[in-house]
Amino acid sequence: MKEGALAPIKNTVDTLKSGNANQPVTGIITTMFPTITVIEEAVKRNANFIIAHEPSFYNHRDDVNLVKNNTVLARKLQLLEKHKIAIWRFHDYCHSINPDIISYGVARKAEWLPYYKAESPVLTIPKVSLKQLVQHLKTTLGISNLRIIGDPEQWCERIALLPGAAGGQFQINAASSEKPDVLVDGEVSEWETAEYVRDLRLLGGNMALIVLGHAVSEEPGMEWFVEWLQPKLPAVKITHIASGNPFTWM
Amino acid sequence: MKEGALAPIKNTVDTLKSGNANQPVTGIITTMFPTITVIEEAVKRNANFIIAHEPSFYNHRDDVNLVKNNTVLARKLQLLEKHKIAIWRFHDYCHSINPDIISYGVARKAEWLPYYKAESPVLTIPKVSLKQLVQHLKTTLGISNLRIIGDPEQWCERIALLPGAAGGQFQINAASSEKPDVLVDGEVSEWETAEYVRDLRLLGGNMALIVLGHAVSEEPGMEWFVEWLQPKLPAVKITHIASGNPFTWM
Repeated sequence: MKEGALAPIKNTVDTLKSGNANQPVTGIITTMFPTITVIEEAVKRNANFIIAHEPSFYNHRDDVNLVKNNTVLARKLQLLEKHKIAIWRFHDYCHSINPDIISYGVARKAEWLPYYKAESPVLTIPKVSLKQLVQHLKTTLGISNLRIIGDPEQWCERIALLPGAAGGQFQINAASSEKPDVLVDGEVSEWETAEYVRDLRLLGGNMALIVLGHAVSEEPGMEWFVEWLQPKLPAVKITHIASGNPFTWM
Repeated sequence: MKEGALAPIKNTVDTLKSGNANQPVTGIITTMFPTITVIEEAVKRNANFIIAHEPSFYNHRDDVNLVKNNTVLARKLQLLEKHKIAIWRFHDYCHSINPDIISYGVARKAEWLPYYKAESPVLTIPKVSLKQLVQHLKTTLGISNLRIIGDPEQWCERIALLPGAAGGQFQINAASSEKPDVLVDGEVSEWETAEYVRDLRLLGGNMALIVLGHAVSEEPGMEWFVEWLQPKLPAVKITHIASGNPFTWM
């Protein structure tokens, strides 16, 4: 909190999802989603504290009772209990640190730090075609497939970079107020941002949309967080494990 | 209401989004999203009443003030006003008719009516591989690209068919209670249903997920709705215009 110059956030989702606050920490793993693979890998590395950006139990507030008889969730809890793994979500505070851990980490991984400003989602990069921009993001962020709305040959210079699922209102507001050449989102609701961009273009506008995928769009932030945190906790080994893209594209 | 044996739905989103209830109807268009293209095509066909399954103004309740200075929305309203086009959303009632207009239309288009039951989302089809199932859905529903989680070679027989964006709680509950071989969704939140299926499989489970895309997953329902509605309104020409997939996959 002090390091990040943060004030307490009411109703934050950044709570312990398993384990307890008094257990001695043997090692720290940072990740996007604390999947079964990430948990098993943490056990192998003798790290009992996972810092995850996103939910553990398949809903925003990690309500374990949202779906009745959820055996997947029950078995995940058993696995966590068996190995005494604590998971802490680091979401609201993560985005409140200045600069935002996620957007800074993504800009860094995309080799855009010279164009990054903590106070704005907009980066003005040397002009490239949308096709070139897609290729650059795929290569630097390690993304195999993504979706766009736009003309692959159009020029892009002003990028609004919004990793994760910021929500339709936030995304459309950024598009509407910043007027970037391209909006780069992690995840969108198709009936919100995607349809807004489709209509914008049908009305003669030129803004494009790139949808990177949620996990892969924010993972570089949790990777960068290792370097941010390690100097502050030199006695504990901190490692990043990428939870990765869950989809096969067909 | 009477034809569908429906009771009034409180706080329904099924309201007039433009035009007024007293204007004479010159023709009816059904669609998923009333995009600028769909509106312009309606004008060409001299049809001034669009029945759309999904929002007109990029948010669930079609709040025109959600985003300040939304010039895309302002220009869409101008276009609707210029041509006196009425848009009515047909969402909540559409899913309340028995059988559900959307799921029936999709099952019909997928050539699955022999396996369709109005009271359940589960269809038991002749056994196919996941890869074959994907190909069948692409061909019958006219889908060019989609995302899956699963092994393309695994066998599928019990399909839970949930077109549209039913929400994580609903989708996970269907998966958890029905235990299908494959969950076929229109749109998912990646931190909900996708992560649930990823963990289920990492724990040794075999259920697969197919994500069709929102618009293309429900469009066959609005196409079928023409046949449902036309005999009830023989004096008015009713036509379907597909709003189509908004994305380019790269």
